[in-house]
Amino acid sequence: MNPSTSALLTDLYELTMAQAYLEQGMTGPAVFEFFVRKLPANRNFLVAAGLEQVLSYLADLHVTQEELVWLERSGRFGSGFLRDMETLRFTGDVDAMSEGTVFFPHEPILRVTAPLPQAQLVESRVMNLLNFQTMVASKAARSVLVAGGKPLIDFGLRRAHGAEAGLLAARASYLSGFAGTATVLAGKVFGIPLYGTMAHSFVQAHEDECLAFEHFAKAHPENVVLLIDTYDTEAAAQKVVWLAPKLTARGMSVKGVRLDSGDLADHARRVRRILDEGGLSQTEILASGNLDEYRLRDLVNNDAPIDSFAVGTAMTTSSDAPSLDCAYKLQEYAGRPTRKRSEGKATWPGRKQAYRYYTADARLSHDIVTTDRDRRPGEPLLRSVMKEGRRLELAPDLSETRQYAAAQLRQLPESLRALEIGPSYDVQISQDLQSLAQEVDRSL
Amino acid sequence: MNPSTSALLTDLYELTMAQAYLEQGMTGPAVFEFFVRKLPANRNFLVAAGLEQVLSYLADLHVTQEELVWLERSGRFGSGFLRDMETLRFTGDVDAMSEGTVFFPHEPILRVTAPLPQAQLVESRVMNLLNFQTMVASKAARSVLVAGGKPLIDFGLRRAHGAEAGLLAARASYLSGFAGTATVLAGKVFGIPLYGTMAHSFVQAHEDECLAFEHFAKAHPENVVLLIDTYDTEAAAQKVVWLAPKLTARGMSVKGVRLDSGDLADHARRVRRILDEGGLSQTEILASGNLDEYRLRDLVNNDAPIDSFAVGTAMTTSSDAPSLDCAYKLQEYAGRPTRKRSEGKATWPGRKQAYRYYTADARLSHDIVTTDRDRRPGEPLLRSVMKEGRRLELAPDLSETRQYAAAQLRQLPESLRALEIGPSYDVQISQDLQSLAQEVDRSL
Repeated sequence: MNPSTSALLTDLYELTMAQAYLEQGMTGPAVFEFFVRKLPANRNFLVAAGLEQVLSYLADLHVTQEELVWLERSGRFGSGFLRDMETLRFTGDVDAMSEGTVFFPHEPILRVTAPLPQAQLVESRVMNLLNFQTMVASKAARSVLVAGGKPLIDFGLRRAHGAEAGLLAARASYLSGFAGTATVLAGKVFGIPLYGTMAHSFVQAHEDECLAFEHFAKAHPENVVLLIDTYDTEAAAQKVVWLAPKLTARGMSVKGVRLDSGDLADHARRVRRILDEGGLSQTEILASGNLDEYRLRDLVNNDAPIDSFAVGTAMTTSSDAPSLDCAYKLQEYAGRPTRKRSEGKATWPGRKQAYRYYTADARLSHDIVTTDRDRRPGEPLLRSVMKEGRRLELAPDLSETRQYAAAQLRQLPESLRALEIGPSYDVQISQDLQSLAQEVDRSL
Repeated sequence: MNPSTSALLTDLYELTMAQAYLEQGMTGPAVFEFFVRKLPANRNFLVAAGLEQVLSYLADLHVTQEELVWLERSGRFGSGFLRDMETLRFTGDVDAMSEGTVFFPHEPILRVTAPLPQAQLVESRVMNLLNFQTMVASKAARSVLVAGGKPLIDFGLRRAHGAEAGLLAARASYLSGFAGTATVLAGKVFGIPLYGTMAHSFVQAHEDECLAFEHFAKAHPENVVLLIDTYDTEAAAQKVVWLAPKLTARGMSVKGVRLDSGDLADHARRVRRILDEGGLSQTEILASGNLDEYRLRDLVNNDAPIDSFAVGTAMTTSSDAPSLDCAYKLQEYAGRPTRKRSEGKATWPGRKQAYRYYTADARLSHDIVTTDRDRRPGEPLLRSVMKEGRRLELAPDLSETRQYAAAQLRQLPESLRALEIGPSYDVQISQDLQSLAQEVDRSL
């Protein structure tokens, strides 16, 4: 049982509604859009991510025989519906922002146009995929922006929320500019560069710390990164200096040491001095341990002699904003624009497009959200990526997406690049869209 | 590719260290324990969960041929190690607290005793599974404690962190006393009762709200729960009253209505009055929309006429504490107790047991954490669940685990049942364990 690919990874009401739609012959084209209502408290912008997994899910959507039998035995569904489920495929269209695109509230990042029962049925998983990767990519981008070009590595698998979260957090953070991950499966599945050092247990398993370092070097002569904080950080750095010539004599060198506890800046300075005085000026320092973008910024701004950083839990779980206030809403059915008017949750109706405008120095100036029919000059952010259930192009290489995301981050105005929250980015709702909303309201 | 079952869902350093251990012949018995260092800010206790998934993972651990080929091509590993990986199985022992057990910092909830390379290799996934489900079960228990017996339903899939998180959050919350979930796959895989209503899109897809209600009732005559806040909550409640006799004439009844926005207590009172005056006193009110344990408590304490609650994002993501400060640490290797002494992260060495003691009125009094050899009266919380890679008993039925967790919550003293943080529960470190720590320190 693979939860990532099961059509039953959905909310019961999606099936319930699909059955009602099918019974009533309500299979006309429905338009749903995924968007974020408002930014989390500590975000100036978001980075779109998860589209590739959504497209794979839609292209592969089907109910297995075993699932059909279970649905039938549940007694909840009629035979007509079960027959429809047996042949279920996604035959709709998808328009979306490219992964890595910077976006803001009210801007759809994905639009599904499909027969109503299909477009409804996929809601839960589409949201599940876009919410998570977008959240992580957005959090990771903040670390990238303050790291001053120093490599960041994802160490978050152990506290990610389950298997898929660990795998996809590696992807989303790489997309946003992380240098790589420790998660082996992410290397295999997505080709993301892998990094790793050693655990405290490796040192503890040996009666002598120096012997542990030597054994590790012998096993991995090309990647000797030694964890030095198990007992006494500076004493261990001295052991590294003592050991280095012995390793050099055997053709190995200590590529780096890792700090994982205590005052990282302070330890880094002491360790740097010990290494330099011991002739190991080429040996780099990697720091880890409860890092987030704020601690990273402090370390970088204080010129702590740290060469690279491993970021785990805070990034993988987007700890200060572990969800987005996102929605997947019906905007049009059978040609009729619709709108939800629930208190505090009203939405803009109809098929929409977001246009982006730039300043003279190529920074983001403002966006305009408008109806899809209201063609404008400016850069349209949504483009067609799937037609009648088929992808229009091959999945872009993840490294290309990563370059695109980096270019997006370069275009951010300084106020949005800061960790602190500045004035909101200017997202305008066009006159055409406002008129449509009034029209819909009048018709209700 | 199923990330939930892949042996490569691990950190690179687990493989790196395993190779070094195997090269050095360090395959003696290692003892690792999983525990939490300190409680999250808003928790008085934790509920152990995830053991079943850990045991399944260990029992099934293997590297596929395709994974072997990839490992080989990566160029990181020697042929000896690859041969070892080809025949990798978990042959160790596991001692653990039963799922649903209330526990506190410093108490191991799981102990792995296995040849060092195996015990090391499984670290990342064991932590990933125990951290997540324990975190969710602990968050969910807080809602259960304030709900006053009213049913709670998991609606969190869409903002759970990926597929497995959605599935396992349904399990962890059910274990802690939720009545069920909307996640269909959790019904299929774990037999958890399923609940569902309708989405706003269902109302929007119809030109007339009343017609939407009628169509929904017709499709699901046994479970007519109508969402009434799409446009105007009270107006929709009036429509339900108008519609009800027509449905009754056709043998259907409106089981409930759902509120999802605005001031839920206020709407519930108005809607209750409308329903009662319309002869629908049997029609229940379900409330949802950004609920967490604090809002639940307010609604329950204010006697809002709400019969059941759906809880989503806050529970699924454990939004106020989206990770635990947990660790999986080497406590003994080849008969020698070990201890990490990193600043702020020191651990108690050796194989441990936690004993629980009760007050005269059967509430928790205090726990004692001691060495495994220090047998005591009192209730030992860890028991043997796997020997040489084989489970010692069948997986308990999830409903039994749920009853056990409910009994655990009943045994909590009042100060720990409160949402606010009271004095810490008394967890004593035995003299025997303190002596062992001193011994280990002397030997370093």
